[in-house]
Amino acid sequence: MKKVSAGVDIGGTNTVFGWVESNGHFLWRGSIKTAQFSNPIDLVKEVSQQLLNNLGEHEAIGLGIGAPNGNFFNGTVEFAPNLNWPNYVPLRDYFHHYFDMPVFVTNDANATALGEMVYGSAKGVKNFIMVTLGTGLGSGIVANGQLIYGHDAFAGELGHVIVEENGRLCGCGRRGCLETYASATAISRTAKELTSKEYSSSQVFEAAKEGHEWALQTFDFTAKKLGLALANAVAMTSPRKIYLFGGLAQAGQLLFEPTKKYMEENLLSIYKGKVELLPSSLSGVDAAILGASALAWKEIS
Amino acid sequence: MKKVSAGVDIGGTNTVFGWVESNGHFLWRGSIKTAQFSNPIDLVKEVSQQLLNNLGEHEAIGLGIGAPNGNFFNGTVEFAPNLNWPNYVPLRDYFHHYFDMPVFVTNDANATALGEMVYGSAKGVKNFIMVTLGTGLGSGIVANGQLIYGHDAFAGELGHVIVEENGRLCGCGRRGCLETYASATAISRTAKELTSKEYSSSQVFEAAKEGHEWALQTFDFTAKKLGLALANAVAMTSPRKIYLFGGLAQAGQLLFEPTKKYMEENLLSIYKGKVELLPSSLSGVDAAILGASALAWKEIS
Repeated sequence: MKKVSAGVDIGGTNTVFGWVESNGHFLWRGSIKTAQFSNPIDLVKEVSQQLLNNLGEHEAIGLGIGAPNGNFFNGTVEFAPNLNWPNYVPLRDYFHHYFDMPVFVTNDANATALGEMVYGSAKGVKNFIMVTLGTGLGSGIVANGQLIYGHDAFAGELGHVIVEENGRLCGCGRRGCLETYASATAISRTAKELTSKEYSSSQVFEAAKEGHEWALQTFDFTAKKLGLALANAVAMTSPRKIYLFGGLAQAGQLLFEPTKKYMEENLLSIYKGKVELLPSSLSGVDAAILGASALAWKEIS
Repeated sequence: MKKVSAGVDIGGTNTVFGWVESNGHFLWRGSIKTAQFSNPIDLVKEVSQQLLNNLGEHEAIGLGIGAPNGNFFNGTVEFAPNLNWPNYVPLRDYFHHYFDMPVFVTNDANATALGEMVYGSAKGVKNFIMVTLGTGLGSGIVANGQLIYGHDAFAGELGHVIVEENGRLCGCGRRGCLETYASATAISRTAKELTSKEYSSSQVFEAAKEGHEWALQTFDFTAKKLGLALANAVAMTSPRKIYLFGGLAQAGQLLFEPTKKYMEENLLSIYKGKVELLPSSLSGVDAAILGASALAWKEIS
């Protein structure tokens, strides 16, 4: 009989979940389409039943749930983008209907940071920042060995730091947010500004690998904005490491090399040469489940 | 017999110190000119002897030292601006020569944050930012009830967040740092750009009170830069309160009102209306000693 925690990651397209041991080993995992459930109660019911049916004789210590705008303090999902849900969803309460054990909710970027801390290369690292580069830009900030939640559990919105006054229009309604310059979506946007053509971020990546100047310029511009924003973030919390995670981080040296260069150029001298910029050691669908399950291990152990 | 901690604040001009009870009541205080001592060893000797001579029958629990570039982890002062000292000064060791008790060193802005937390209006506030507006701009960031030191004890350099690419030249050698736009020095600089005349920050304050347009514009410009930078800081650590401290904060509503306005305008919607912008409840020379002594109370209790 092994001790396991459940990780559940609720995304706009898929909801993935599984039972995970404290060393990150999967006991079982499952996946469903989020949109096939018209409301969160039905989704929670299905996820819970599948989890319970696959626990076997093992001992469950708790559940961690990662969701867009997941609120750790309230156990809710509030005004989640991309989920056609009510404004306040008491997700913790819904899961408690099926599980008589601790249930924790947080947002997906925080869960990713916890995954890196509990199972990945941030083990023992007391001060780091996780930056998730997907459709948008999310972040989880760890200081003194703890995730920073802020007073309302909404800390760590690095994607909505304004890096350009009167800059690009953001989905949040304001202008100049970092995620309008550094994300998969932003890569397409920059490429279009440079070429007047529509490209997906993967197409820009392929073109950059082949050495096309416009694609290399797109990555350079992205890195310049991201590098400066990271240098400014360092001046706030002075992390030892910064991790990049997600689709765009797969671009490897095309993204890391110029981002590192621009970050270093913009660092205050006392920070220069001290901050490692690294790819996350977790990847893909597993990372989402691991991150969520890490929340339970972190809070309970 | 009362329990007291010593607070020592080492500044470019004066070094102030005293014995303080846990409720912030002063038992005794003293002051010397920093520059009359050619090296830190002699300064520490004089401060220590005065403290020991004035302790009486009370019980000392520890010492807190605030100094420019004070490093909490190392107990050192490193590359301190405005002090004609060696690059690395092992201040904690020097004080241990006279005191067989815990000695803690940090920078002055962190000490101010701790003073507000231990004695002032941030009692019980788990997430706040202290911004010190003097010659430069310093900050102390508190999250989860703890001061954020970062991996190297140099976190909280909000004054060196770059808010304008290729902006004003900063004393740190880079361009566009917040403190070149929001500090007493910056007020003079902005006034000069607007009027081509030299004004001290107090003269600008007096002129603004009298309603002179150029002086009001100076405050508005300062507030615009500060307000945006605070909004970006909120997106990182989501504080409940932000305190402004120091000479420039004495400008009162001339500074607070426009800064609050620009901060709110630039906040992501989930933070709007939630962050209080307040003057520090501590002031003057006492605040520096209180802040340093708070470090000892915070670490020991």
